[in-house]
Amino acid sequence: MSGLSRADYLARDAGDPLAGFRGSFRLPADVIYLDGNSLGALPEATPARLAALIEDEWGHDLIRSWNQHGWIELPRRIGDKIARLIGAGPGEVVVADSTSVNLFKLLAAALALNPVRRMILSERENFPTDLYMAEGLAGLLGRGHALQLVAADEVAGALDAETAVLMLTHVNYRSGAMHDMEALTAAAHRAGALALWDLSHSVGAVPVDLGAAGADFAVGCGYKYLNGGPGAPAFLFVAERHQEGFRQPLSGWLGHAEPFAFESGYRPAPGIGRYVAGTPPVLAMAALEAGVDLLLTVDPAALRAKSQALTESFIAAVEALAVGLGLTLATPRDGARRGSQVSFRHTQAWPVMQALIQRGVIGDFRAPDLLRFGFAPLYTRFVDAWNAAEALADILKKRAWDRPEFHRGAKVT
Amino acid sequence: MSGLSRADYLARDAGDPLAGFRGSFRLPADVIYLDGNSLGALPEATPARLAALIEDEWGHDLIRSWNQHGWIELPRRIGDKIARLIGAGPGEVVVADSTSVNLFKLLAAALALNPVRRMILSERENFPTDLYMAEGLAGLLGRGHALQLVAADEVAGALDAETAVLMLTHVNYRSGAMHDMEALTAAAHRAGALALWDLSHSVGAVPVDLGAAGADFAVGCGYKYLNGGPGAPAFLFVAERHQEGFRQPLSGWLGHAEPFAFESGYRPAPGIGRYVAGTPPVLAMAALEAGVDLLLTVDPAALRAKSQALTESFIAAVEALAVGLGLTLATPRDGARRGSQVSFRHTQAWPVMQALIQRGVIGDFRAPDLLRFGFAPLYTRFVDAWNAAEALADILKKRAWDRPEFHRGAKVT
Repeated sequence: MSGLSRADYLARDAGDPLAGFRGSFRLPADVIYLDGNSLGALPEATPARLAALIEDEWGHDLIRSWNQHGWIELPRRIGDKIARLIGAGPGEVVVADSTSVNLFKLLAAALALNPVRRMILSERENFPTDLYMAEGLAGLLGRGHALQLVAADEVAGALDAETAVLMLTHVNYRSGAMHDMEALTAAAHRAGALALWDLSHSVGAVPVDLGAAGADFAVGCGYKYLNGGPGAPAFLFVAERHQEGFRQPLSGWLGHAEPFAFESGYRPAPGIGRYVAGTPPVLAMAALEAGVDLLLTVDPAALRAKSQALTESFIAAVEALAVGLGLTLATPRDGARRGSQVSFRHTQAWPVMQALIQRGVIGDFRAPDLLRFGFAPLYTRFVDAWNAAEALADILKKRAWDRPEFHRGAKVT
Repeated sequence: MSGLSRADYLARDAGDPLAGFRGSFRLPADVIYLDGNSLGALPEATPARLAALIEDEWGHDLIRSWNQHGWIELPRRIGDKIARLIGAGPGEVVVADSTSVNLFKLLAAALALNPVRRMILSERENFPTDLYMAEGLAGLLGRGHALQLVAADEVAGALDAETAVLMLTHVNYRSGAMHDMEALTAAAHRAGALALWDLSHSVGAVPVDLGAAGADFAVGCGYKYLNGGPGAPAFLFVAERHQEGFRQPLSGWLGHAEPFAFESGYRPAPGIGRYVAGTPPVLAMAALEAGVDLLLTVDPAALRAKSQALTESFIAAVEALAVGLGLTLATPRDGARRGSQVSFRHTQAWPVMQALIQRGVIGDFRAPDLLRFGFAPLYTRFVDAWNAAEALADILKKRAWDRPEFHRGAKVT
């Protein structure tokens, strides 16, 4: 690892075929932003797009915009665009609600389609909202459904004749470890279970091919690597073969076959349309669409290659510069098993991250001891990886984290 | 009714204490907008507020804005503001999700709090999404819950020992008729039922006092009279006495007692916080807050007085100008029983509304035969009521609606 230098990293930036995309984002000059896995950066195109939407479409054309500007089509139109990023077909993805609410719809579908079984199998370190939504659904149903939680490497072995659905997040939010979607989906199917994937930490950063994997259901987040803005609407995928086998329970008017007939009884829309509930959040959807449109211009293979090179380079720089300073890599060393983030454990992770943030290196902390660094490949540079590693090493060497102000603070990131 | 003139209406505008609020909105010069009950107009303050949020908070401060700019507090902060508009206390209202999704949460709460009973009582002409969500929940529970639908004037008489919850929209979206919330809530309670009110067509236009009425639950829409923008987030109210008696089933991470502890098991937040599910839609919430902030500067009694005067004036002008032209008033003549809209029936309602829209008078159509006109009191003028009535009368007199292009078109409004 020795012999690395900033010059090497600058040289990599000079040779990066995606380097030009950084100019498509507004990034503050004074920070190294390594938290795009929590909140993606602002695309350059978004402010003007939102201003036009607000002033011209809402302000001037008012209610007529539902037709004239295609607001009513937004859930499916953006869904079809996201489908191209995740190996889904047209009409298999729709944008709606939050990831949490979409999980509820699809878990309800999965349990209904596999009615004899009672177990929702997941990973103990899955993102909590996935587990909480499963718990909420099981409690509401009151029919003995339960959540079975195992370690990541025990998932395949835990599939059995009780498993109704395997619910996993493709890339773990803490460790950045990536599951083998194709193998686990196949294992789930062999065991007679359905497979529901949460793509929140995958879409826009790592290759996803739901079709090739034979996945049944998926959800994902709009505000991380899709750069859709804080709290952006989420999306959901239902394989075409399952779409009409079920009425999802959040049966709002815009999932009705004819919303503007205003019938008193619910008739589900054909296909993916029935997975919409209420009125689409137009402002938020327009921001999401701007982020998705930008990603659609990128070669996915180049994106993955840069993501892997960035995380590899960061690990190398940290291990070269911060030898013996108490850091332990928490992310798989094998690039093929890694998403687009790197996490290190450190006993003082919280104050260390505060010290980094004070120096303008923005990663985040995950309890109890994780320093988490996201490498959004569209706008992160190799020199950012170098500079962040250097700042981290310097803080640890000088114990610069050991100041009272770095031990305070709300842990909201 | 005769003897009325445009001059009378202009005189009313000249004496209107709320006339100045029209300048707080951007309205197109070439239209008379009578559809604020479907999509509220754009507040003058909103574009700059969104631009600052997008460029400074998202673009520059990025993830730090969750703390630095209070994004994490938005659901409760805006909820507390809306509480002041509907007679609720601090901590009784939260902004989240859509009206449809919030109905699901609160119906689930109501059924759990009244566990022996099986009937959800509502009005046959309630807004369909309310009925569809109830149907979806009952179907998911599979425990014999059913939706009992009666005519508006039969609701009180239909309450019985089977009624778990009375679910009504305060102001009917078609007729504009307003229920007596206090009397019906009391009747529901006497019958041992809970009362859930949908305030979508009330909040921001007519007085609502959930506290005085003793209401148990309420939901409402952000994009009508609150002027929160297309598809704005919705709100929900849970009376303090009920808040902790129930875990709502859409138990997402931001309704957890400690979201950033990332525990694997769900522990509901205290109070109203548990009624949040996923990550708040920050852009959409900021737009909603701008609309709510404007309403908080208005005297509610003056707002109601103007709303009643506007609808009364419109009815008077139509009845003076369009005598014998086939219109039938579908809205209560008694102003005390009317929301802020006026509907007329006409056998040719669809083409008549298209002809009006072509002349720049924007109301909307509701199947099969309703012409619907909303009078948002903050920005609608008396002369708008006059001009709209005159245009309607002229179209009917000349049969100007009887052109092929007015018979076409998607019925999306």
